[in-house]
Amino acid sequence: MTTKPLHPGQTIGIVGGGQLGRMMALACAELGFKCHIYCPEENAPASQVAHLTTCAAYDDLAALADFAAQVDVVTYEFENIPADSIAALTSSKPVAPPAQALKVSQDRLDEKTFIAALGIDVAAFYDITDIASLEAGLAQTGGHGILKTRRFGYDGKGQWRLGPDSDLAQVLDALDGQPAILEALVDFEREVSLIVARDHAGTVSSYAPIENVHKNHILHQSTLPAQLSHELTQQATQIAETLAAALDYIGVLAIETFVTSAGLIVNEIAPRVHNSGHLTQDACACGQFEQHIRAISGWPLGDTQAHSDALMTNLLGDDVLAWESWAAQPATRVHLYGKAEAKPGRKMGHVTQLKKPQ
Amino acid sequence: MTTKPLHPGQTIGIVGGGQLGRMMALACAELGFKCHIYCPEENAPASQVAHLTTCAAYDDLAALADFAAQVDVVTYEFENIPADSIAALTSSKPVAPPAQALKVSQDRLDEKTFIAALGIDVAAFYDITDIASLEAGLAQTGGHGILKTRRFGYDGKGQWRLGPDSDLAQVLDALDGQPAILEALVDFEREVSLIVARDHAGTVSSYAPIENVHKNHILHQSTLPAQLSHELTQQATQIAETLAAALDYIGVLAIETFVTSAGLIVNEIAPRVHNSGHLTQDACACGQFEQHIRAISGWPLGDTQAHSDALMTNLLGDDVLAWESWAAQPATRVHLYGKAEAKPGRKMGHVTQLKKPQ
Repeated sequence: MTTKPLHPGQTIGIVGGGQLGRMMALACAELGFKCHIYCPEENAPASQVAHLTTCAAYDDLAALADFAAQVDVVTYEFENIPADSIAALTSSKPVAPPAQALKVSQDRLDEKTFIAALGIDVAAFYDITDIASLEAGLAQTGGHGILKTRRFGYDGKGQWRLGPDSDLAQVLDALDGQPAILEALVDFEREVSLIVARDHAGTVSSYAPIENVHKNHILHQSTLPAQLSHELTQQATQIAETLAAALDYIGVLAIETFVTSAGLIVNEIAPRVHNSGHLTQDACACGQFEQHIRAISGWPLGDTQAHSDALMTNLLGDDVLAWESWAAQPATRVHLYGKAEAKPGRKMGHVTQLKKPQ
Repeated sequence: MTTKPLHPGQTIGIVGGGQLGRMMALACAELGFKCHIYCPEENAPASQVAHLTTCAAYDDLAALADFAAQVDVVTYEFENIPADSIAALTSSKPVAPPAQALKVSQDRLDEKTFIAALGIDVAAFYDITDIASLEAGLAQTGGHGILKTRRFGYDGKGQWRLGPDSDLAQVLDALDGQPAILEALVDFEREVSLIVARDHAGTVSSYAPIENVHKNHILHQSTLPAQLSHELTQQATQIAETLAAALDYIGVLAIETFVTSAGLIVNEIAPRVHNSGHLTQDACACGQFEQHIRAISGWPLGDTQAHSDALMTNLLGDDVLAWESWAAQPATRVHLYGKAEAKPGRKMGHVTQLKKPQ
């Protein structure tokens, strides 16, 4: 991958047209880059603010090659891009974050195995292929655990919480032959995410850890900074640096962790900007979206220092109808994603409330 | 003009495709609005980040009407729009700021007359139509003054500084029959601009005064907040409120003033977002671009409180080549405008350096 920085006026290609792509496109604009979106949807949130859009399926290799030919670097806003598609892009243009990071994060078993091999704590986990392996796993985890599909799960989808009374045959029916992983339950005090960036030269830059509260398995609120001891903050930095280096990572990497009495346990990683990092764009000199664009473009990483403390609240579904009252709040920034339909649970926007640092 | 707020998803029409239009378009995107640009240039800075662009001349009344039919409110990024064009837009959709503000600011004689009639201090000024009126004016101003075309001047263009040795006949030749105004020289300590917003209900919200330094008649640096006594800050607020109310203004209004030993003297007004206000987007919860979009959309005005002090530096022409070293500075935000050619003096971008409030 080239280490020569892209110049203003060159074009960033983004695979995916949702709100993450939209906010990356806006960051491209601030830095003087053009932005070309690739997504199957017409009038996607990202397309509304991009210079160009290629509207095609994620497995349309010819369209992907044509798209790559028109841009100077390719990035993406989600991790479930087919391997063949990434290969088609990579053969033509630099792709960041690297394919290896995508591959690891696409599969929960690969992910946990990779992280654990680095000496970083994760929940105990077991490869589940049938009822025998599921029963064997549960025997190890004391009869409780979470069964998750290895691929394509998000926001609690493809997950089953299991206990001694669970009907395992029924759960395996619902799983319908998908490869799965059983994870032991983690007794955690809170959830904290680490948003970190790594550039071409291997420099790693972290935002202060962010504390998250989920509702119905969907992120509800994030707070910057997390209440974290000095020791745990140091552990967080070390985890972030270890993971980013091991993945030979370029771009923004999100790491979700549990705070436990035994320290931080990594839950999962996302090779992209992350919902819990949205508040950085309002609270820091350089937010995660700009940081990602800087990293993949070979620019110097931006300043992650926060000028304000921040509380981010997601606007899901009809929450967005309260835009006018949010807009009237002092020290509050409103971000809406340009989505036409407010389906239940759909991420329609977010608000960030700023306050003076403590 | 309607006072019902526009809903996210509705469309803001912006006449003009330059950097001010670009930054307004980005603010539209944050609030979930679509943005439709009207400008004669292909691939204009604003078009690169807008949902749609109508590419047509500013006096193409049919194209303007067609554009207005497709948007929900019309605004503009510069004041030299022909009156007939504004009339064509106004007949179809709400236009903000109001035509009256455009009219006043398009003509320096009208502008000074309007401001003076409100009891606000301006430099002594004289209508110049020929050599006799010019000689009579100079007799009043002690032989020194600045002759300016009444219309279409900016960044020092269409201005002549006159003294006892000036060849008045030659200057009038250069003026080539354009209506002009002679202004007395103002002995000022510093230049301060007021960025103010007024909403449909008549609420006025001001940013803290901003101090400006020009080089070769072009804005070089702006500092937030200006060093201004409590009394002058109060005078600034009063001037801003008086002018915004007198113009029945909706949107962001910029007022350039001179700080003199006798208080503030208004130099000129601009019925739009303003270069000196760029730093508000990085230093305040709600920057001038978002504030303008909020005001013209009937939204609550945003919070103008600054979380940081700020110094903005314009990147003119080749200054932009230093983007990489600016990008490496701590607490610094880089904004580039997507312009292909760095002609001398051309506004290519700006940088804002943030620091903790004093």
